[in-house]
Amino acid sequence: MTQAPVTGPLVNFLAASRWEDVPGDVRHAARRSILNVFGTALGGSRDAAVEGALAVLNRFSGQREASVIGRPEKLDLLSAAFVNAASGNVFDFDDTHHPTIIHPSAPVAPALFALAETRPVSGAALLHAFVLGVEVECRLGNAVSPWHYRRGWHITSTCGVFGAAAAAAKVLGFDAERMVWTLGNASAQSSGLVETLGTMAKSIGVGASARGGLSAAFFAEAGVTGPAEPVAGPRGFTSVMGEAPDLAAITDGLGTRWELLANTHKPYPCGVVLFPVIDACLDLREANSGLPLDAIDSITVEGHSLLRERADRPSVTTGREAQVSAQHSVAATLIHGVAGVAQFEDACVNSAEMLALRRKVHVAELPGTPVEAARVTIRLADGKVLSRLVEQGRGTPRRPMSDADIETKVRELARYGCPGLDPSPLIDAVWALERSSDAGAIMRLAVP
Amino acid sequence: MTQAPVTGPLVNFLAASRWEDVPGDVRHAARRSILNVFGTALGGSRDAAVEGALAVLNRFSGQREASVIGRPEKLDLLSAAFVNAASGNVFDFDDTHHPTIIHPSAPVAPALFALAETRPVSGAALLHAFVLGVEVECRLGNAVSPWHYRRGWHITSTCGVFGAAAAAAKVLGFDAERMVWTLGNASAQSSGLVETLGTMAKSIGVGASARGGLSAAFFAEAGVTGPAEPVAGPRGFTSVMGEAPDLAAITDGLGTRWELLANTHKPYPCGVVLFPVIDACLDLREANSGLPLDAIDSITVEGHSLLRERADRPSVTTGREAQVSAQHSVAATLIHGVAGVAQFEDACVNSAEMLALRRKVHVAELPGTPVEAARVTIRLADGKVLSRLVEQGRGTPRRPMSDADIETKVRELARYGCPGLDPSPLIDAVWALERSSDAGAIMRLAVP
Repeated sequence: MTQAPVTGPLVNFLAASRWEDVPGDVRHAARRSILNVFGTALGGSRDAAVEGALAVLNRFSGQREASVIGRPEKLDLLSAAFVNAASGNVFDFDDTHHPTIIHPSAPVAPALFALAETRPVSGAALLHAFVLGVEVECRLGNAVSPWHYRRGWHITSTCGVFGAAAAAAKVLGFDAERMVWTLGNASAQSSGLVETLGTMAKSIGVGASARGGLSAAFFAEAGVTGPAEPVAGPRGFTSVMGEAPDLAAITDGLGTRWELLANTHKPYPCGVVLFPVIDACLDLREANSGLPLDAIDSITVEGHSLLRERADRPSVTTGREAQVSAQHSVAATLIHGVAGVAQFEDACVNSAEMLALRRKVHVAELPGTPVEAARVTIRLADGKVLSRLVEQGRGTPRRPMSDADIETKVRELARYGCPGLDPSPLIDAVWALERSSDAGAIMRLAVP
Repeated sequence: MTQAPVTGPLVNFLAASRWEDVPGDVRHAARRSILNVFGTALGGSRDAAVEGALAVLNRFSGQREASVIGRPEKLDLLSAAFVNAASGNVFDFDDTHHPTIIHPSAPVAPALFALAETRPVSGAALLHAFVLGVEVECRLGNAVSPWHYRRGWHITSTCGVFGAAAAAAKVLGFDAERMVWTLGNASAQSSGLVETLGTMAKSIGVGASARGGLSAAFFAEAGVTGPAEPVAGPRGFTSVMGEAPDLAAITDGLGTRWELLANTHKPYPCGVVLFPVIDACLDLREANSGLPLDAIDSITVEGHSLLRERADRPSVTTGREAQVSAQHSVAATLIHGVAGVAQFEDACVNSAEMLALRRKVHVAELPGTPVEAARVTIRLADGKVLSRLVEQGRGTPRRPMSDADIETKVRELARYGCPGLDPSPLIDAVWALERSSDAGAIMRLAVP
């Protein structure tokens, strides 16, 4: 049988890639993603799903060589990778690869930092492996999208295991053959179902992808072989977990087109359609300081049809539902002046003040509005009308968060999830990572 | 959305099931399967895939509370479950659930024995949990078969994780709700691709299924919740990893129809179509003692079309290929008088004697022959013809291996993989397991 040679070119690229080949904008995108995922992991480090996973893995931990972001516990490498991936992604507030909706950093970065705590890995070597790991997972995601996610695969987990594996293989200095084995061992552990989203079990899948990817490289190092074409063989990843996969998306333009440049960062821990809505509310609040909430008669949110279809949810009772509710997002932003993790917690959803304001919010379609835009109009009891149209929500591809925005986000998340930690040294260290001779040292700045 | 309520009835059955409800023939089938998988794990305990997995997991092991079958090392529970599942299945010589081709014991039994080494579990409680775990994995397999395996899922791994999870949940005494969470945490870790078969990476998938299932129960115990319908929700297991799944196959006849009764045991570590062929060769050899191999002019193997399609492979160079070669199976059996693991190793495949005899073997279709039958005809140089028709191969559903056959198989496998171990006390202990107050004690009899 003739096979499209996919794994071969991919591992040849991985094995041959040099840090000097990675352009400056890609390097900077890597630093931004790593900084962002440290923030989301700090913010998520006390979440119930993370506590549950940690309780179990702590019980069975081997040699405690690796740090758990935002926590005093140390764990063996594989377990630390699991927990840090889980906390990095638990709020879905980590980076998002726009074409696939993969959250690429959560499986990859924790595997690498765990490795870097137990062997000499320079900052440049870690960034390089991170870039390559993200490249592999997102290219595999491109090949099977959009069918894969729609079918019900949690693409962050299913592709993340390959990204973590490839990144670890690069740090371990594997030749192409051992990289093929690594991807084979990863393919045997590719899992994650969309049915688990909205529950803690999602984080088990994401944690397992980081652990599985790192272990896949260790297994290959120990001589565990795999098939020649784990990615695209007749019963390999793209064949089984894709439908009419686009294999050229995996191999075309390797080393010239970089997936990290299609990565985005969320300013708010909620559905992307709500970003311009929250921007508009923040602008209205700032432009009308002292806006008395009880003077509001009604609020209209207008936008693309997807906004109405996905986010017209007047009655929500949990933080998780609130993440896709325009009514909640508007009310929370106007009341609190900020839309952070705390505004999408159960405790914030059910206050009397929130309920009263949420009831006044109506969602309507405004034909011709692009999905990145939205208008919020507030009618006051005295007849006055305040309106704000946002054409590009912050955090959408054409209006990316600035480096300063990401820093602010990390500070807020650290305050939320790990108030005992001053994030400034961590932030500085991530920006300076390329010049570090010891990438693992950064983990000491990410624990209280 | 209306959901077929699958997970609910399944966990209600699991939670309510009492050992007294399990019929005697099912109990006995459980003992046979457990004995058989101890044998295959002993036989596989020095395989390269097992050595590789063990080398890695040993390095990261937590508290060393659990035994590794056939080996002196001890590992944490999760890692021991991984390695014992890998060794139990590495030769595909473990039990086979006929309707699905799942090897049901390898993921389930190791999870249970690891648990039983660290808490009081009676033999009856372990057997009961084993019966239920096998029930869950095989029913899930029934629901998605045959599409699932044909698509490229290694069904032993993908369904095994649910079996190990359900079995562990029963031992841990979970109520129905926590069992739902357990199955949700298992669903997030369901993986395994057919592309890896014939390589060591297969064993990574099988090991991960045992580890993943056991961890799924521990995560649920620690409060990690999951979706309400992980089995059959719109983005749950049967929807994503099945095509037009037969959900009734999961819930119909729970407690009255038992999947263990559809389980079979292999007499030879090779493809099932070759069983009657090997039987015929053994019979011919026994009936013609002193049959001089160099007096053989030609050998004809006749049977069902599948025999020719799958096993007409005159030129093989590896043990793995030999497992599906009629030519090799005939030559090896006639030369060695036995068809065990050693006869399907690389070392056995390429000897001059083997090559010479293999060349004389021809495979032909005999129209009307059922797949469980085969005829072997030996023509000697002096014109004499020896022929033997086997109508039901040993180890096929209607001619199951006897208890004594399984004992012999276990002894041979122990001698092969762990020659320092006397398997008699282990064999006795498995037969007596139901009366044991400490099921974990049996593991001390399975290590050298």
